[in-house]
Amino acid sequence: MYPESLKNLIESFKLLPGIGEKTAERLAFYLINEDVEKTDFFAESIKNAKEKIKRCSICNSITDKDICDICSNDLREKNVLCVVEDPKSIFLFEKVGTYHGEYHVIDGLISPLDGVDPDDIGLEKLIKRIQKNKYKEIIIAVKPSIEGETTALYIKKIMEGMNIKVTRIASGIPIGTDIEYIDTMTLERALNDRKEIE
Amino acid sequence: MYPESLKNLIESFKLLPGIGEKTAERLAFYLINEDVEKTDFFAESIKNAKEKIKRCSICNSITDKDICDICSNDLREKNVLCVVEDPKSIFLFEKVGTYHGEYHVIDGLISPLDGVDPDDIGLEKLIKRIQKNKYKEIIIAVKPSIEGETTALYIKKIMEGMNIKVTRIASGIPIGTDIEYIDTMTLERALNDRKEIE
Repeated sequence: MYPESLKNLIESFKLLPGIGEKTAERLAFYLINEDVEKTDFFAESIKNAKEKIKRCSICNSITDKDICDICSNDLREKNVLCVVEDPKSIFLFEKVGTYHGEYHVIDGLISPLDGVDPDDIGLEKLIKRIQKNKYKEIIIAVKPSIEGETTALYIKKIMEGMNIKVTRIASGIPIGTDIEYIDTMTLERALNDRKEIE
Repeated sequence: MYPESLKNLIESFKLLPGIGEKTAERLAFYLINEDVEKTDFFAESIKNAKEKIKRCSICNSITDKDICDICSNDLREKNVLCVVEDPKSIFLFEKVGTYHGEYHVIDGLISPLDGVDPDDIGLEKLIKRIQKNKYKEIIIAVKPSIEGETTALYIKKIMEGMNIKVTRIASGIPIGTDIEYIDTMTLERALNDRKEIE
């Protein structure tokens, strides 16, 4: 029904998460009405990003260099390492701006039920990096879930006897959220991890 | 903060309507993890659609040929013309599948307040087409709004004395919608345009 080239553009948008037929149509119709400079920029950006983005050889984050900007930054604190489960988390923490240490990206979380073992998420590379450097603290900043806890405990266990503090980021009720909307597990955690008001 | 090529991809997504910073980041991160075949298909689709899509020389809809599939289809009824305000409406009506006549796309709606005159939306081309063909009915299928009504009345007035029936598609309460959510103007229209149950 649609012209072939428009159909392909709609199909392209449907590749994206959360974009169904209707939204894809709306975006495609919008885009073909934009200036050719903009559509060219869009097309080139996709090709460029795919071609140039690779993994940092040290921390496994995404970068367009061999070593990412954070790993090659001498001003970062070299004795704290924050372990995240995907590169995006790094950019989120950097937006917060209060953490100045190093990062390491593991490729997902351990999940025995889904057949994801420690080897599958590149924990070896993380352990080697920890053994090579003098970290005082490893912060586990992965999603609070069964898989997240399993992964955190696994890392903690491997590091036993290495005299490094292993911490995980706090779980609890998000700022500004009504308690009535919070699930039982989070409430339980929030209670257990309560902190004295000083 | 982001690698340059990723930043450009995020900016590209932000060109689209309804896509802000956060969604753009999510889509960009998703896309760079897809296979290169998919990202190439996406990039090519944008370029192709922009290059190949043009306006049908008869009805002003979008097509990748000189004359669109509907205008060049001899099986369509040649004595009814449906006037729509953008090409997308045509594909929506075609999905419904009950209309078999011709279409004509005007470029928007008359809006004196915004300085949009009849000339700006290509009504001349529509009038010429109507004068050249033998239509029994012109269906105005534009948005029911002040601008839509103005445009419909303008077309109706120009066609006075041409002995062609001019109709507009019905306004009223969408099927399945609770009446409590309907605005006053629509309710008023629904009352006025009530039909006898047969």
